[in-house]
Amino acid sequence: MGILKSKGVIYKPIDEINLGPTSDELYISPIVKAPRMAGFLVKLFAWILESKIIGMILMYFLKKQNLIHKFVTFAEMEESPVFVPLHSSAEPSKQEVRCIESAQSPCDRVEEATECLPPISDITLFEINYCFRHWTVMDYSKAYKSGVVTPKKVAEQFIRAVERSLSLNCNMSFFINCDANDIVQQAVESTLRYENGKPLSVLDGVPIAIKDEIDCTPYPTTGGTTWLHKYRSCKRDARCVERLRSCGALLVGKANMQELGAGVNGINPHYGATRNPYDTSRITGGSSSGSAALVSAGLCPIALGVDGGGSVRIPAALCGVVGFKPTFGRVPHEGVLPLNWTVGMVGILSGTVEDALITYAAISGESFSDQSTALQPKIEVPILKPETISGDIKMAKYGKWFNDCHPDIKLCCSKAIDRLQKCYGWQTVEVTVPEIETMRLAHYLTIGSECVASLDQVLQKLDMSEVGWDSRVALSIYASFTSMEYIKAQKIRNRQMHFFNKIFAKADVIVTPTTGVTATRIQDDALATGELDYITGAALVRYIVAGNFLGLPAVTVPIGYDKDGLPIGLQFIGRPWSEATLLHISFALQGLCKSDYKKPAVFYDLLSA
Amino acid sequence: MGILKSKGVIYKPIDEINLGPTSDELYISPIVKAPRMAGFLVKLFAWILESKIIGMILMYFLKKQNLIHKFVTFAEMEESPVFVPLHSSAEPSKQEVRCIESAQSPCDRVEEATECLPPISDITLFEINYCFRHWTVMDYSKAYKSGVVTPKKVAEQFIRAVERSLSLNCNMSFFINCDANDIVQQAVESTLRYENGKPLSVLDGVPIAIKDEIDCTPYPTTGGTTWLHKYRSCKRDARCVERLRSCGALLVGKANMQELGAGVNGINPHYGATRNPYDTSRITGGSSSGSAALVSAGLCPIALGVDGGGSVRIPAALCGVVGFKPTFGRVPHEGVLPLNWTVGMVGILSGTVEDALITYAAISGESFSDQSTALQPKIEVPILKPETISGDIKMAKYGKWFNDCHPDIKLCCSKAIDRLQKCYGWQTVEVTVPEIETMRLAHYLTIGSECVASLDQVLQKLDMSEVGWDSRVALSIYASFTSMEYIKAQKIRNRQMHFFNKIFAKADVIVTPTTGVTATRIQDDALATGELDYITGAALVRYIVAGNFLGLPAVTVPIGYDKDGLPIGLQFIGRPWSEATLLHISFALQGLCKSDYKKPAVFYDLLSA
Repeated sequence: MGILKSKGVIYKPIDEINLGPTSDELYISPIVKAPRMAGFLVKLFAWILESKIIGMILMYFLKKQNLIHKFVTFAEMEESPVFVPLHSSAEPSKQEVRCIESAQSPCDRVEEATECLPPISDITLFEINYCFRHWTVMDYSKAYKSGVVTPKKVAEQFIRAVERSLSLNCNMSFFINCDANDIVQQAVESTLRYENGKPLSVLDGVPIAIKDEIDCTPYPTTGGTTWLHKYRSCKRDARCVERLRSCGALLVGKANMQELGAGVNGINPHYGATRNPYDTSRITGGSSSGSAALVSAGLCPIALGVDGGGSVRIPAALCGVVGFKPTFGRVPHEGVLPLNWTVGMVGILSGTVEDALITYAAISGESFSDQSTALQPKIEVPILKPETISGDIKMAKYGKWFNDCHPDIKLCCSKAIDRLQKCYGWQTVEVTVPEIETMRLAHYLTIGSECVASLDQVLQKLDMSEVGWDSRVALSIYASFTSMEYIKAQKIRNRQMHFFNKIFAKADVIVTPTTGVTATRIQDDALATGELDYITGAALVRYIVAGNFLGLPAVTVPIGYDKDGLPIGLQFIGRPWSEATLLHISFALQGLCKSDYKKPAVFYDLLSA
Repeated sequence: MGILKSKGVIYKPIDEINLGPTSDELYISPIVKAPRMAGFLVKLFAWILESKIIGMILMYFLKKQNLIHKFVTFAEMEESPVFVPLHSSAEPSKQEVRCIESAQSPCDRVEEATECLPPISDITLFEINYCFRHWTVMDYSKAYKSGVVTPKKVAEQFIRAVERSLSLNCNMSFFINCDANDIVQQAVESTLRYENGKPLSVLDGVPIAIKDEIDCTPYPTTGGTTWLHKYRSCKRDARCVERLRSCGALLVGKANMQELGAGVNGINPHYGATRNPYDTSRITGGSSSGSAALVSAGLCPIALGVDGGGSVRIPAALCGVVGFKPTFGRVPHEGVLPLNWTVGMVGILSGTVEDALITYAAISGESFSDQSTALQPKIEVPILKPETISGDIKMAKYGKWFNDCHPDIKLCCSKAIDRLQKCYGWQTVEVTVPEIETMRLAHYLTIGSECVASLDQVLQKLDMSEVGWDSRVALSIYASFTSMEYIKAQKIRNRQMHFFNKIFAKADVIVTPTTGVTATRIQDDALATGELDYITGAALVRYIVAGNFLGLPAVTVPIGYDKDGLPIGLQFIGRPWSEATLLHISFALQGLCKSDYKKPAVFYDLLSA
């Protein structure tokens, strides 16, 4: 961080910045000056922002108050902009890996992946010592193959469970669209395949939910809105969904999400606030709220989300499941709503690391039709056996940043790192990550600008009353950014890519808590209007944006619970294309934590019931 | 072009657009609604635009009137943005080429290049039939080697000529900085090398001028301003200049340019309006005004420019010289003012195609330290012998566009194409290039946004009275663009890249006039304030922007003169990385036109005087 001048920050040349533990770089916790708003206040705020002149003046002061002017708009730096976080080369993996050929069919890839998994144990959902674990893909596959249960039976239980979730005293709001007939039909076909002894893959008949930002027939793709699908029809499966379907996956519907993905609390004024299975009075986090809640509540072992600003990792952490965001460009985005172009990536939510690995093998590869396919390194997955866990992993940790979270999270995350060090001999390397708050603002400016550039053509035709109040405020802010601010944000991207590259020369991953707070309470006044709470929002995304803005792979693993019993996640941010390393590390961590896993308050056991 | 709706154009899906000759796509000539302004009017306009509220309202109407709203801001299209026009693959060349290894030293590369040249003839500057030709690098080299003249002698004549150009009744305003002592010192060293029989290369002692946008010691880099060098010091040669210097080139100073490159007339209120050697009452075009005028007037066979929006090709065409802009990323931009990042490229101005080839071999290759070096195909130069000229060249021509120029230009360019068809059997393919005016606006929005993002940190500290009035207006307009508009412009870039790729599947090059008008008159009221004439500006850049916005290589070759004796250029736009093809074609065309070349009114013969 350079000299704090009156107008804009003067950023020091990159080479003058010390990234070691003794650096004098300031750590700045998000300086958010905005009161929580919901109900009438949000409406008033939206009205003012949407009025031309007064809105513009208010916006000027908001940007100034929240240091966007100081950190971005009027900042001085030498770097060129980097517009797209593409990475062309990869470090060789340290651990044992298997290469997945992208030319193979998804079924063959899934088979390769299953060969990397540890031997499936015979333990049931609750082990003798009462620790909890989610049913996995291999559990489903084994149960189906042995005939203990059929996909049809699971589908029926699934539908009943979703119905029950609607009739609870609180609506879980898992789905935006879920068609019982379509599910049963898929399940019948899957059951037939098992009867003929010819399942397509281990995913055959396994329930998978799709965030409603990703095309999946026969459903419209609403993006959490009540209107987007009227202007953009869903004609075929997105490429990633097509791959899962070709493996026989039982696609169970379109999971709820924050409207337009423009927030991280998971409260959708149109389709309801998705509720946290660990405590239904709490948020799930967002924007992939439904995906996280469905996996957490046992309704599917896997769900797809899209992570543009933590939208997979945040709800995964808050709901106690695994959230895995691959390197930018790793999963094809054909058929995903183009709400942004340079920070988003399809991500995986799953009950276990093993299932994230299988899904990753199925959906990744051959992403861009444009420029970058040729650049992509091969798809690698690690061999997940307890005996193959590497003893040579270096985890970079920035103490001031790491500790800037709720004390329960700090304690739980520190304990997890201690265990990794003790059990596997992994090392922690103390580093300094400079300009984190600047990166958060630059990412916000980028994702917002891209969102409004994507939606503008629809918004012009739209009666704004169809848009949720919280989204209206967000869209007003997004539309206020200038092209100069956007380009400066891309210069900041360049700086950060340099910083992270240097840190990755000393460590395999960067370790942080996934979120600064656990799931917050859903307040009644937020249900109809959505909620603006930029302070909580900033705490939720505090550790998140490098994965998006710099295109890096990242994963969150559930490691424990706060005093209220709410889940806590630990995040690893990896080098470009180091998915295999991240899955390897996550598996090791999961092995240490799984005896502590607790069952959510809302839970459906589809296999053994 | 889609339906012209009230608010924004709805662009058709790319695949529905017919690029053939019978297409129903509208050709829209630039619709520029802005009167010419100079003197007090420019000042008034700048003042108004710089005032907050009224400026904003005026800007709104300007953007609306000039169809930026309709064609860009509120336009609807399906494409994702493409932020940087990087091309990773190249078609194999049809003609005989030689590969230049970028690992070789510039001297070795120049030697390779000279082996591709036709045998040097013994003709003097004026052949028997009185046709005119510029002295070439090989002429200089031969004269130096034979001892007819020394670099020192040439340097002295050069300095005298520049002095004379200042004392003419009109100042030619060739240079912003030109240090006689430095030139003489270089020349003395070069002379010594020849005396020792060890010239560094054929470029040793050859005068080369550098646009004042490119670092070249011992000069400051002003960018045509009176202030930029106070905030950014020039510590070492730019990479391309360093390469020329290592070949022994006699670097003769910093050529005049439009302030900040923010215009194409070449009128600089601080350093004078560079005057056209063919008619000193006329502009040179810009922004590389001095570079073009110096080559045209015989003061150097080669000059470097930078082409972000025709800044090399426009003045080259207006001054009757060759202007060559390589593919985006081909020449390193280290040490070039970062006025924009995604459209600019160092370009070459030279008296002949042969000299462009030599310079290209010397300065190109290994451009980006960041991501893209690995992507670049090899550097190829064609074998320039009359007998190797290919008979198999397809030139795409869009009639409506081609003909949208002054009748003299149209006639001259059509005649040139006829000759190419007759003499070499080349074919013309009629095509349609859609949305040309949209591309012009999207390019303007892009280069403007990048310019202001680059300069903002200096402008904040600057007393605006140091900035020329025309630049102040430009900067006000540039600062008015939103991030949404910028991103939409990048979506338009994606569309056009598709269109051009499809056209290049049917033809080797696209052929157009270089400019829509020849050199216009310099009016007295423009000298102190610069001139705003967006209508002439649009006519000058009409055929230019694809080269910049899509990163394509392009070349202009002098082919004749209008009724007033002002030069006319023909432009070829090539496939990505097809520099060898462009040089090959240009050489063929030059061969047909050279007997018509006329001597400029202002001309200095340094070799034979």
